[in-house]
Amino acid sequence: MSPTRHFKFIVEYDGTGFSGWQIQKAKQRTVQGEIQAALKKIFRKSVRVSGSGRTDTGVHALGQIGAFEVDTNLNVLAIQRALNFYLPKDIVILGLSQTKAQFHPRFSVKTKIYRYQILNRECRTALERNFCWHVPQPVDLNEMKKEAKGLIGKNDFRGFMSSDTSHDGTAKDTVRSIKRLDIRRKGKDIVIEIEADGFLYKMARNIVGALIAVGVGKLPKGTITKILKGRNRSLAPAPAPARGLYLAQVKY
Amino acid sequence: MSPTRHFKFIVEYDGTGFSGWQIQKAKQRTVQGEIQAALKKIFRKSVRVSGSGRTDTGVHALGQIGAFEVDTNLNVLAIQRALNFYLPKDIVILGLSQTKAQFHPRFSVKTKIYRYQILNRECRTALERNFCWHVPQPVDLNEMKKEAKGLIGKNDFRGFMSSDTSHDGTAKDTVRSIKRLDIRRKGKDIVIEIEADGFLYKMARNIVGALIAVGVGKLPKGTITKILKGRNRSLAPAPAPARGLYLAQVKY
Repeated sequence: MSPTRHFKFIVEYDGTGFSGWQIQKAKQRTVQGEIQAALKKIFRKSVRVSGSGRTDTGVHALGQIGAFEVDTNLNVLAIQRALNFYLPKDIVILGLSQTKAQFHPRFSVKTKIYRYQILNRECRTALERNFCWHVPQPVDLNEMKKEAKGLIGKNDFRGFMSSDTSHDGTAKDTVRSIKRLDIRRKGKDIVIEIEADGFLYKMARNIVGALIAVGVGKLPKGTITKILKGRNRSLAPAPAPARGLYLAQVKY
Repeated sequence: MSPTRHFKFIVEYDGTGFSGWQIQKAKQRTVQGEIQAALKKIFRKSVRVSGSGRTDTGVHALGQIGAFEVDTNLNVLAIQRALNFYLPKDIVILGLSQTKAQFHPRFSVKTKIYRYQILNRECRTALERNFCWHVPQPVDLNEMKKEAKGLIGKNDFRGFMSSDTSHDGTAKDTVRSIKRLDIRRKGKDIVIEIEADGFLYKMARNIVGALIAVGVGKLPKGTITKILKGRNRSLAPAPAPARGLYLAQVKY
């Protein structure tokens, strides 16, 4: 008999073709579902995968973290290669390692980093169309940076949580801590990075949507603080689209 | 009656979903075909588009150049916007301007720049899978650079032309002039840029395929010169895949 061993992995995926990370009851294509299907092919039995958290339909990952346990004697590199052999082209396991039984990819998280990619030129893009939000208007980055300051630190982010909370039983505690919120221009792109100890449902996209609304002058200065203090989603503009969002890194 | 005016445009496209640039007799999806279909919607008649040259199935463009003539009084920006409205998401007209009747996007070319993108890490990629060639082995860039020197200047590139020349009546003249061939590392990527007064059928991909074969040690030093002098395609390795190739710029 093989011993039960615990594994941690880092996974990159193109969210375009997935109904998000988490397995759905209907026959939708999900990242978790595809990884479990690949594990089943390797170990010839069901292996349950857990992740650091969900990502929505269309959201990408550069470094999502997941874990599973299985009784096997296979070496780690052989398992990783077998996974990448069986996984579809839009998912790749970048690293796999053995870990302690105590490690939990969700509960052990210290911070997560989400990156949001905006194309800020008049023309839309053909090559990057699934990987950014096209904002054709001029954007005032200084104004956005000033607004963003109000979000740093420990706050009740209820105003930036999606009003549809059916997905998540943890919506009662809406206090999170943003460590860092960087906004920078890189050629024609605007890149926004948010590091926090946790994110409410659609929080990253709601923050980006509100910041851009101020940046293009659609909403007045002070809007961000108003949404935060008001703790009311109805004050805020639409979330930024999923296709520009990447789960960049999870820290433990 | 409207006057006949001549237009030049710069177009970006994701080659993944196209059977190349040029209209095919079968019902394949082509870039030229889609642009002509969009022009037909705008002007309600057939408008013939010419390009700086063909690109193959799967090859992308950052700056392909094309031209057409049509009798219209519409202003240039209105035509560009209408085109981008009617064009599918994987094609975008980045710029449109009126030009002289003498301008021909193919015959007026001074040089073209092709860029080739290689991902050089052990793992394949999910996010960039349609936009690069994955080469997992270590690559010796210095060796590649030494080999590349033999290609600079005016040469008969018959050895780097695809043996299938059915596509092109100009295959008799196989002399071209490479002005520049840059190879550089950029993180996990290797980027190769080739600037020449013209490219034979699959010449860019055949050059990249041969350079990488030497870089990974599959073929000995001196292979490039041997292929060039031998003027015989059968000496050369397989071409690099289309998905890593971009028509980056056309100079006039």
